Amino acid sequence: MQDEAKPRDPKATAAAVAELLAAFGNNRVVTSQTVREQHGHTASWHRNQPPEAVVFAQSAEDVQQVVRICAAHRVPVIPFGAGSSLEGQLNAPQGGISIDLHDMNRILAVHAEDLDVVVEPGVTRKQLNDYLRDQGLFFPIDPGADASIGGMAATRASGTNAVRYGTMKDNVIALKAVLASGEIVTTARRAKKSSAGYDLTRLLVGSEGTLGIITEITLRLHGIPEAISAGSCPFPSVEAACNAAILTIQSGIPVARIELLDELQVKASNAYSKLGLPEMPLLCVEFHGSAASVAEQSESFGEIAKELGGGPFEWATRPEDRTRLWQARHDGYWAACGLRPGAQAVPTDVCVPISRLAECVVESQRDVAVSGLIAPIVGHVGDGNFHMQLLVDVDDADEMARAEHLLHRLAERAIAMDGTCTGEHGVGQGKMKYLAAEHGEVALGAMRAIKRALDPDNIMNPGKIIRLD
Amino acid sequence: MQDEAKPRDPKATAAAVAELLAAFGNNRVVTSQTVREQHGHTASWHRNQPPEAVVFAQSAEDVQQVVRICAAHRVPVIPFGAGSSLEGQLNAPQGGISIDLHDMNRILAVHAEDLDVVVEPGVTRKQLNDYLRDQGLFFPIDPGADASIGGMAATRASGTNAVRYGTMKDNVIALKAVLASGEIVTTARRAKKSSAGYDLTRLLVGSEGTLGIITEITLRLHGIPEAISAGSCPFPSVEAACNAAILTIQSGIPVARIELLDELQVKASNAYSKLGLPEMPLLCVEFHGSAASVAEQSESFGEIAKELGGGPFEWATRPEDRTRLWQARHDGYWAACGLRPGAQAVPTDVCVPISRLAECVVESQRDVAVSGLIAPIVGHVGDGNFHMQLLVDVDDADEMARAEHLLHRLAERAIAMDGTCTGEHGVGQGKMKYLAAEHGEVALGAMRAIKRALDPDNIMNPGKIIRLD
Repeated sequence: MQDEAKPRDPKATAAAVAELLAAFGNNRVVTSQTVREQHGHTASWHRNQPPEAVVFAQSAEDVQQVVRICAAHRVPVIPFGAGSSLEGQLNAPQGGISIDLHDMNRILAVHAEDLDVVVEPGVTRKQLNDYLRDQGLFFPIDPGADASIGGMAATRASGTNAVRYGTMKDNVIALKAVLASGEIVTTARRAKKSSAGYDLTRLLVGSEGTLGIITEITLRLHGIPEAISAGSCPFPSVEAACNAAILTIQSGIPVARIELLDELQVKASNAYSKLGLPEMPLLCVEFHGSAASVAEQSESFGEIAKELGGGPFEWATRPEDRTRLWQARHDGYWAACGLRPGAQAVPTDVCVPISRLAECVVESQRDVAVSGLIAPIVGHVGDGNFHMQLLVDVDDADEMARAEHLLHRLAERAIAMDGTCTGEHGVGQGKMKYLAAEHGEVALGAMRAIKRALDPDNIMNPGKIIRLD
Repeated sequence: MQDEAKPRDPKATAAAVAELLAAFGNNRVVTSQTVREQHGHTASWHRNQPPEAVVFAQSAEDVQQVVRICAAHRVPVIPFGAGSSLEGQLNAPQGGISIDLHDMNRILAVHAEDLDVVVEPGVTRKQLNDYLRDQGLFFPIDPGADASIGGMAATRASGTNAVRYGTMKDNVIALKAVLASGEIVTTARRAKKSSAGYDLTRLLVGSEGTLGIITEITLRLHGIPEAISAGSCPFPSVEAACNAAILTIQSGIPVARIELLDELQVKASNAYSKLGLPEMPLLCVEFHGSAASVAEQSESFGEIAKELGGGPFEWATRPEDRTRLWQARHDGYWAACGLRPGAQAVPTDVCVPISRLAECVVESQRDVAVSGLIAPIVGHVGDGNFHMQLLVDVDDADEMARAEHLLHRLAERAIAMDGTCTGEHGVGQGKMKYLAAEHGEVALGAMRAIKRALDPDNIMNPGKIIRLD
C-alpha cells in the first residue's frame, strides 16, 4: 500500500534524537521497538512503519522545541493523538519523530454563554463530554472511536451526528498549531464568525499534520437536547432505506442521526449485540429537540418510512433503550469482525451525493458478491457517506489482490458519482492515489504549492495526502 | 483610508488593454470614465480608485483569457459582481482590469434530492431564490443587499439567517475559480462532506479575489420551512436583549433570525417604515419549522423575553406581517440615512463572543455619544455580530477624524474582546490595518506565504486583505 520506510538521513535523525534526549530526558524520548511500533500503528491494514523515536509532549512549548530540533536536522515529525486513524496517518515512511500528545489533555476553558470550549489536542471526545455533562452541554462529533480532539481536527472527522451538527470543519472555531518554523500560529479568535482574512482554521482542519501540529482547539458546543428519541426501522431494500433518508431530510426533519446497516451488518450485529432484528436493510435514527418536537419528528419519520414500504418503526425515549441501540451501532466494527474470526478488518469509506447513495451501495454489494469476500456496509446515510469493512486473510495473496481491487473500484465509483474517496477517514497513505482523479491536477498543484510555502523542507508528516516529488 | 491609486506600469496596462480589445472588442472592453468609476465604486466611503478598463466576461473561458493576458503583463485583475461590497474590495489601488461577472448569471443545475445548486458567480441571491421557490427550496444566506453569489462567496458573507443556517463558509460545497496562472481549479466534488485533502473551498471563500476569481459555485440548499413565525419584542436595555438572545440559543431554540436594533435605529425605522414601536432596544425574531414547532419556539422565546423584562412579544405567522417586519429591518440602512439627510453613511461591522456583545454595544454607544456623531446600531445578535452606521459629513475634516477614531476604537474593542474586526463585510482595504492585531504576525506570515505561493506576481486583486511588501 505504500513505499518502504526509508529514513532520510540516519545521521541527521541520530543527531536530532541526541538533542531531544538532552532536552527531554529518556523518560520522555523513547526509542524502544514496542513504543515505536505502537506509534506507527494504525487501526487498519497499512503496514507498520514506526518512527525512530517517540517524544511525549506536555505543552505547546515542548512541541515547538521538538519541531525546531527536527527542523534544524530536516527530520520528519508526526503528531500522534489516540492512534485511532485508519489510513496510515501515523506511519513514518521517511522515518522521523512521533510527537505523542496524549499528555496534553487539559480542558482549558468552558465558555457556557458562548457555547464553546478550549482544549488541548490530547483530550478525547468521551473525556470532553463527561466533563461537559454537568453543565448541560455536549460536543456532538462522534467518529465511533474515542479519538483525540486534535486528531479529529487534523483528519476532519465526523460520524453519526454530522447530518445534524456538521463535521469538525463546522465545529472548530479556532486552532493553535506549531508550524514547520517552530512558530505557533493562532488561526482565529473566538467570535462565532469572521470575514477577516484567509480561513487558516479550515486549512489546518483535515491537513493531517502535514501543515502544522495542532496544540489547542476551540470547539463549538451545543446544549444537551431537552428530549431525545431513537429507534430502528427495517426496509425492503437499500434503495427504500436511502429514499426514506432523502425524504426525511428534504422534509426538513432535523434528524440528529440516520444510519444505514445493510443486511449483512444487521446479521453481524444480531449475533454480536443480541438484537433479534429482521435481516433486512435497517435505518437507525435519532431525534433531538423539545419533547413535543421529538415526538413530532418521530411520527413524521414513521410516516415516511411506511410510505416507502419500511417498518415497523418503533421509537423509544428511554435512555437505556437508546444506549442499547447506539452501542450496537458503535460495536458494528466488532460485530463485523465476528463474521470471520481471525480475519484482518480493512475499513474504508466514501461519500457521494445522497441521490447516488443507493446505487453506490448496491453496486458495491454486487462487487463484494463477485469478489467472494465478506464486507458488510454501514452508512451515515444522511450525508451520503458509507463504510465498507472488508474481512480478509492478509496471508492470502489472491484474496488481498481481490480486496485491493474492491477498494479501488469503490473509490473510483464514488469519484465517478461526483463524490469523494473519503468522507471522514482522511487520505493518509491509503487514499493518496485517488486524489488526482478526485481533485484534478490544478487542485493538487495548488495543494502542493501551499504545502511547500508552509513547510519548505517537507518535515511535517511527509508522505501523507500529497506527494511532493 | 488607503494609498493613492498607483498603476504599476502604464505601458504594461496599455499593452494588456490593447490585447483585451483585440480579443473581446470594444463592446466588452470598456474604458469610459463612468464605467470605470462605477466598477471601482464601493457602497461605502472608501475613495474611488477606478480600474483602467472593465471587461464584461460571459464565460469561465473569458475569465481565463483575461487573466492570462493580464498575467503576461503583470497587470492586476479585480473581480466585480454586484458592486455591493463595503470595504473597498472593488477598488484598483494599483490599477488594472476589472472583470465584470454580471453576465455570468446562469443557474446551471438544481439537484433537489441532494439539496444543492450549481450557479455562475453573477447570479444574485434574489434571482436564485425566485428560481428555486417553485421547487420548495431556498438559499438562506441573506446579506441584505441583492449581492451576487460569487461576491458573497468571495467575502464570506452571511446576514440575518446565519444564526440558524451558517455563513457562506458553511453553505458553499464546491467552487471553480481561475487562478493567477489562468488555470481553473475545482475545489471539491458534490459530496456533502469530504476528508480528501486540503480544504481549498474554504481557502477561496473569503479570499476576496486575491487568490482566484470564482467562476462557478455549488451551494447547499434548504427546504422552505412548512411554517414560519416572526415577531418583535422591546427590551428595557441592550443587556436584557442580548441576554434574551443568549438564553434562546442556550435553550436550543433553533431560532432562524434574531436581530437587535438599538434605540436610535428603532427611532429611525419608526420614522422610515412607520412602525410605531416604543423607542427601546428591540429584538426581531423568526422561527422556522413545522406549525407545531414554530408555535412552541415562539412561546418559549416569549417566556425568555418576559423573564428578562422584555415584552410585549407578539408573533405573527401571516406572510404579510412577516414581510413588513423584515422589510423594515432590511430598510434599516435607508432608515438610518434618514436620521441625517445628505450625510455619507459609513457602515462597519465587528463580531465578538456573544457573552461580550452587550458590553461591546454599550461601550460603543458611549463612544458615539462622546464623539457627537450619529451612529445607530443593528446586530445579528445570535452570532455576536453587529453593525454601526455612522452618518458623517465627508467635507468636515474634524468630523471625519472623529469618525475614523470611532471606527478604530470599535475594531480594537472587538479584537480585545476575543472578537474580529469584521464578522461579514470582509477586509478589503478598510480593515487591513487591523489584521496584525487580530491574527498576529505568524498568521499573517502564513497568509502571505499562501498568497505568494498561489499568486507570485501579485496580480489577483492586489492591495486587499494583506500587504505583501
